[in-house]
Amino acid sequence: MAAKLSPLAPNRIVGLAPLRGVMLSATSCGLRYQGRDDLMLAELAPGTTVAGVFTRSLTASAPVLWCRRALKGGLARLLVVNSGNANAFTGKAGTASVDRTVAAASRALGCPPEQIFVASTGTIGVPLDDGKITRALPDAMQRLAPDQWQRAAAAIMTTDSYVKTATRRARIGDTEVQLNGFCKGAGMIAPDMATMLAYVFTDARLPAPQLQAMLEKGCAKSFNAITVDSDTSTSDSLMLFATGQAGNRTDVGPRALADFRRALDSLLLDLAWQVVKDGEGASKFVTVTVTGAASFRAAKKIALSIANSPLVKTAVAGEDANWGRIVMAVGKAGEKADRDRLAISIGGVSVAKDGQVVPGYDETPVTAHMKGSDIAFSVDVGVGSGEATVWTCDLTHSYIDINGSYRT
Amino acid sequence: MAAKLSPLAPNRIVGLAPLRGVMLSATSCGLRYQGRDDLMLAELAPGTTVAGVFTRSLTASAPVLWCRRALKGGLARLLVVNSGNANAFTGKAGTASVDRTVAAASRALGCPPEQIFVASTGTIGVPLDDGKITRALPDAMQRLAPDQWQRAAAAIMTTDSYVKTATRRARIGDTEVQLNGFCKGAGMIAPDMATMLAYVFTDARLPAPQLQAMLEKGCAKSFNAITVDSDTSTSDSLMLFATGQAGNRTDVGPRALADFRRALDSLLLDLAWQVVKDGEGASKFVTVTVTGAASFRAAKKIALSIANSPLVKTAVAGEDANWGRIVMAVGKAGEKADRDRLAISIGGVSVAKDGQVVPGYDETPVTAHMKGSDIAFSVDVGVGSGEATVWTCDLTHSYIDINGSYRT
Repeated sequence: MAAKLSPLAPNRIVGLAPLRGVMLSATSCGLRYQGRDDLMLAELAPGTTVAGVFTRSLTASAPVLWCRRALKGGLARLLVVNSGNANAFTGKAGTASVDRTVAAASRALGCPPEQIFVASTGTIGVPLDDGKITRALPDAMQRLAPDQWQRAAAAIMTTDSYVKTATRRARIGDTEVQLNGFCKGAGMIAPDMATMLAYVFTDARLPAPQLQAMLEKGCAKSFNAITVDSDTSTSDSLMLFATGQAGNRTDVGPRALADFRRALDSLLLDLAWQVVKDGEGASKFVTVTVTGAASFRAAKKIALSIANSPLVKTAVAGEDANWGRIVMAVGKAGEKADRDRLAISIGGVSVAKDGQVVPGYDETPVTAHMKGSDIAFSVDVGVGSGEATVWTCDLTHSYIDINGSYRT
Repeated sequence: MAAKLSPLAPNRIVGLAPLRGVMLSATSCGLRYQGRDDLMLAELAPGTTVAGVFTRSLTASAPVLWCRRALKGGLARLLVVNSGNANAFTGKAGTASVDRTVAAASRALGCPPEQIFVASTGTIGVPLDDGKITRALPDAMQRLAPDQWQRAAAAIMTTDSYVKTATRRARIGDTEVQLNGFCKGAGMIAPDMATMLAYVFTDARLPAPQLQAMLEKGCAKSFNAITVDSDTSTSDSLMLFATGQAGNRTDVGPRALADFRRALDSLLLDLAWQVVKDGEGASKFVTVTVTGAASFRAAKKIALSIANSPLVKTAVAGEDANWGRIVMAVGKAGEKADRDRLAISIGGVSVAKDGQVVPGYDETPVTAHMKGSDIAFSVDVGVGSGEATVWTCDLTHSYIDINGSYRT
């Protein structure tokens, strides 16, 4: 199951320092993978507030349905995540699995069930043997410690080729606060609210509704702006926990939160990029910027049409500056665009404008850009001032190898 | 450029018999390909009526824009099609190319320009050297003959690995009429009104509006129900020409046209399937049937979500009965579905029902089915009576090879 390291992997894994109010542990409970951790716990100090965004899939997994419900309480004490089995499309048995896991955890901690959050990632449609989780719980809780971030982040991986972590610091009024985050995801990435599993922790003290608003806003331009293969997961979950241990004042206006918000947005984007760079089979990281659209929504739809096009993605894999396919993808997006004012640049070089190739177009610098690993497409569709940026990767042979035999 | 023969290619090419009122020729005018025909003419008897459906792409090619306009006249005398260059996204120069080609052809035939129909298929964004077409026209018109169907069908191919033809007979009242059709297409196939180039000819006498209505209806369940890669072409064109040479009565009610309609629908579906079976890199032909949806539209959207999912398509390529990905694709389609009533069968074997895997599920017969070349997925989403079927192929390494280097 260990995936070959993505050529786009970061040079070094960012270490996460302990964060006041969070204790973690990881263990192997034997759900599917041999010889690696597949169960992760994060214990949160009493009073921790929580926000979350989840997949909009109509076939959302049982854990997602539970978390949506539990989120209403606004408080969290424990997060339990397993890899190897998604507990999705498992019917009433799947709901019962979640209920038993939550009950065991809430008994062990002595807190209401609504403060237990769960997630499962892996194969869809296979009943989850939750006994393996509940039996492993007591020991895993014994071993909770403040310095287990790396191991926790590794335990939730499936086809990921590297651990994805990020950290930031910010000020709220006079108080310095910290943010730690990690996530997993490499395929089935076309988040429709959040991608696969992503968890962010802060020691800031922030009421849940404020937390929720900031998370939704940050998500729109990070996790909701990436795609690997246009396929939306049944398990997408992005959660933000605020332990309050930093002791900052909470009677502050939105202005005082500007720095925190900036740090949060930056951390979310950092994690989202790490997901794209670990996209199944990825060899190139692609930034698609669309300007001149009727609205932000229209710009994003056009950008995603380009980013999801198999013909654009295979051209990138082949290092072919086949910009005609970008034209095609703009045309099929179904959003307003002026064919005769369309302008395209690749790697900052103008390729087409006013609806045709630029006079005397020399492909040499563009071809050189396509040979790099960081590809930039910019498209102006000439009708308004809406703009959006999305990030994706190319479509290579490895994507097919990985996904032709995922279950075996 | 000659593509490796698709493993799904038909055992034999259907020969097309001469059809009263149609003369064809094909020649090499040297636009891009060496040593093969790249220009096709079809001359139609005076009085031939015409219907057409074209791409809904907002970046439609210059020939498509011309045909849409010319179609208003309802009459056709000549069809001119070149391969190797799509004359799409070529700005004012592209429009001028079409105008010059149309002018030359209408002069040669002595007919109004509006009775000349043109199409171009190949690379997007490269100016079309229409001089090569107009210079080749006189000789090509000299050589028009009733028995050149095969060569004409071959001349319009690009990445196709085989010639796509179909023929039918039908009765209108006492009169037997004939239908001949051919088309091209293998990639950039997600028709949004019609796919790549497809031409159908009949000797029936039928007014243009009636022809148009029948074509639109037939298209919805054939060309508009196939997808290779979810990418919509800038050049999609499906046209139907009726020469009237069969001399059937035209003062007939819709009932008298039932047989003709049936033959037309069947011919369109035949050609559409041939496109899917020549899908770039295809090794399996996949039928996706969705029932129990809120409407036909909803059923089709869900079916296309399954058929376009890279994860479903790579699982098919890997002969893996990974039905969890079908659940995922239903979930992301955005149409109403009852997760807890969802039922899935593969190759006629029930795999999941009531929102979970069937009790005692034995994958053996399903795995055997996945090893075949004709794969059938059926999904009931449990909310209504809408149903739709779409056809697609798998996603293999060859798709990436073909499209990583299309222009070189």
